[in-house]
Amino acid sequence: MIYADNAATTKMSKAALDRMVSLIGDTYGNPSSLYTFGQKAKEELEKAREEIASLIGAEPREILFTSGGSEADNQAIISAARLGAKKGRKHIISTAFEHHAVLHTLNKLEKEGFTVTLLPVHENGLVVPSEVEDAIREDTCLVTVMYANNEIGTIQPIREIGEICRKHNVLFHTDAVQAIGHIKVNVKEDNIDMLSASGHKFHGPKGVGFLYAKKGISLSNLIEGGAQERGKRAGTENVPGIVAMAEALKEAVAGLDAYAAKLTPVRDRIIKGLSGIPHSALNGDAVRRVPSNINFCFEGIEGESLLLLLDDKGIAASSGSACTSGSLDPSHVLLAIGRVHDVAHGSLRLSIGEDITEADADYIVQSVKEIVEYLRGFSPVWRDLTAGKTKFIL
Amino acid sequence: MIYADNAATTKMSKAALDRMVSLIGDTYGNPSSLYTFGQKAKEELEKAREEIASLIGAEPREILFTSGGSEADNQAIISAARLGAKKGRKHIISTAFEHHAVLHTLNKLEKEGFTVTLLPVHENGLVVPSEVEDAIREDTCLVTVMYANNEIGTIQPIREIGEICRKHNVLFHTDAVQAIGHIKVNVKEDNIDMLSASGHKFHGPKGVGFLYAKKGISLSNLIEGGAQERGKRAGTENVPGIVAMAEALKEAVAGLDAYAAKLTPVRDRIIKGLSGIPHSALNGDAVRRVPSNINFCFEGIEGESLLLLLDDKGIAASSGSACTSGSLDPSHVLLAIGRVHDVAHGSLRLSIGEDITEADADYIVQSVKEIVEYLRGFSPVWRDLTAGKTKFIL
Repeated sequence: MIYADNAATTKMSKAALDRMVSLIGDTYGNPSSLYTFGQKAKEELEKAREEIASLIGAEPREILFTSGGSEADNQAIISAARLGAKKGRKHIISTAFEHHAVLHTLNKLEKEGFTVTLLPVHENGLVVPSEVEDAIREDTCLVTVMYANNEIGTIQPIREIGEICRKHNVLFHTDAVQAIGHIKVNVKEDNIDMLSASGHKFHGPKGVGFLYAKKGISLSNLIEGGAQERGKRAGTENVPGIVAMAEALKEAVAGLDAYAAKLTPVRDRIIKGLSGIPHSALNGDAVRRVPSNINFCFEGIEGESLLLLLDDKGIAASSGSACTSGSLDPSHVLLAIGRVHDVAHGSLRLSIGEDITEADADYIVQSVKEIVEYLRGFSPVWRDLTAGKTKFIL
Repeated sequence: MIYADNAATTKMSKAALDRMVSLIGDTYGNPSSLYTFGQKAKEELEKAREEIASLIGAEPREILFTSGGSEADNQAIISAARLGAKKGRKHIISTAFEHHAVLHTLNKLEKEGFTVTLLPVHENGLVVPSEVEDAIREDTCLVTVMYANNEIGTIQPIREIGEICRKHNVLFHTDAVQAIGHIKVNVKEDNIDMLSASGHKFHGPKGVGFLYAKKGISLSNLIEGGAQERGKRAGTENVPGIVAMAEALKEAVAGLDAYAAKLTPVRDRIIKGLSGIPHSALNGDAVRRVPSNINFCFEGIEGESLLLLLDDKGIAASSGSACTSGSLDPSHVLLAIGRVHDVAHGSLRLSIGEDITEADADYIVQSVKEIVEYLRGFSPVWRDLTAGKTKFIL
């Protein structure tokens, strides 16, 4: 199998798994316990916190462990909203193509009386910093813009947006689930106040993530109960998972340059190959994108059929976010960059991993070409297009 | 080391760990993906759901996977509150010695205008069902009573309470974190509408739990985002953790009789031994308690010193809930059963596991005896007591 869905989830690294198994066997004590055995777990927990903090330019006390990226997104946004409401500031700025963990949380806040401005991301999938500045109002309490998009991989001008937020004294959160471990992220240099991350997106375990919140930001609890995580996130700490996440992030950050050097040419080779398919188009900026992401639309076909036939050829890919598959709606991300419904339906996301070879890349391109041609062969939409009854868009 | 803090957390079973490692290596796909590799993970996820459902007398669709017991408690109570509020019913009944995941969620709801009645649990740590019935009002939307207490291990008359709730058409939730896998629990027979459980309390992994909600109960989301878990809990499913939890529960439930047969006499041997210490008292009913739990108060000493000295002797124990250690307040559970502050401070919880031997039990008793005597030797409180300046309570 060629696994080209690393944006959905990654395989755990051997080092991370080894650490996890080791802790499960030897250091399973409850870190809130007084005895030595529990304190050992506590030490491992705090070492993991220090490690993760140092890898993103934060301080240990600024790292809160969660069950994943979605929980971190929810907690960050709810916290900023509660802080804003106290000062009568109930306006939030975001973008039209955020992850649903952000968008649905914003929907919930709208029902509570918050106003949300969703910025356009334009054809290239990028936010324009000056448009953030123009959108900021007196009552804006939060700007939340994802670092790298989960479907089309575009990397936002986070540093510039952060700078604008600092200038206007507005909290800035970024969902960095697709960025952390894939590109360089430094919360200080990038002017980030809050950041969400998920372990299983960078070869760590599933079910664990973290929220960075700059010191001084008082978080609201999403999960009430015990006094874990400085009283801000109840529940026995998943120490083996957290330590494994730290291990995976350490590896990923250490290998960032090699990762980019290895993947970027392969990504571009696939992009070049797929661009040869008539009436196709790359989604998102060709340069400002994570090294792993390729996302295309092919006119006249259904993405789902494409995926199933790729699966038959041993290629695991996606049409967009795994979180919404099963849904008949086209990707809100592709709609946000201006793709019309019919075109958005014919999309393919390939998120490659470090094990990919040039031969794999060529096999993917060849397979997609064959399948697109095959599917178009009996597509009524394609027949109408080629007969001139409807007009090509791509 | 004698690990006698299984109520804080347990060691993962070998079978559960093996399953987890196997899935991490071979079935790491995202279960929401269309391709075969993701669908294999989906199958494992749904098999785990079926297994857990059948082990507690539920249907698969009634099981929602969470990051643990605290999250499940929060979601259950918030959901019942939202449903109640829609009908103008904003009164909740609970007990004074629930887990903080319940009590703090209730506090939050009180701030939103809900009224909470906390029932007494009496000297034996047990709720009287008729007192539940007496407390039910026209506007009661929820009764939440824990199945087995996390500190003193007392087992509530859940079936009777559930019956009363059914009769009055009030939702009934139980935090069964300390009961599931330790005593027989069947949601149908026990008249339970909602139930919370945590994997790491029955030799499953940390960071995973589940919420049972009877079909027809519309849950509110705690974590918004993707459409996982029927749209009620966002975030990529932690399939390896969930499958391992199911494996651990299968083992635990299969071994329930052997567990009770093995642990009950050892528990009672320790209780008998510790009762020989002057001015000591067992906390909670001697019979209606989980087979693993022993909880004592010793007059004139500090529980913390006792724990540290037990640690020196290789015994890992607790003074109460791990979730609140570090706090200077005495256990709210012990206060709820009528222990005064000073006495509650001198508490010890032993939660034994299946690996315990009679020799271990005797070593524990001997060690506690020696340490209590030693600590009393230089305790000013004890000096005043023995000098008749203050009166013994126990």
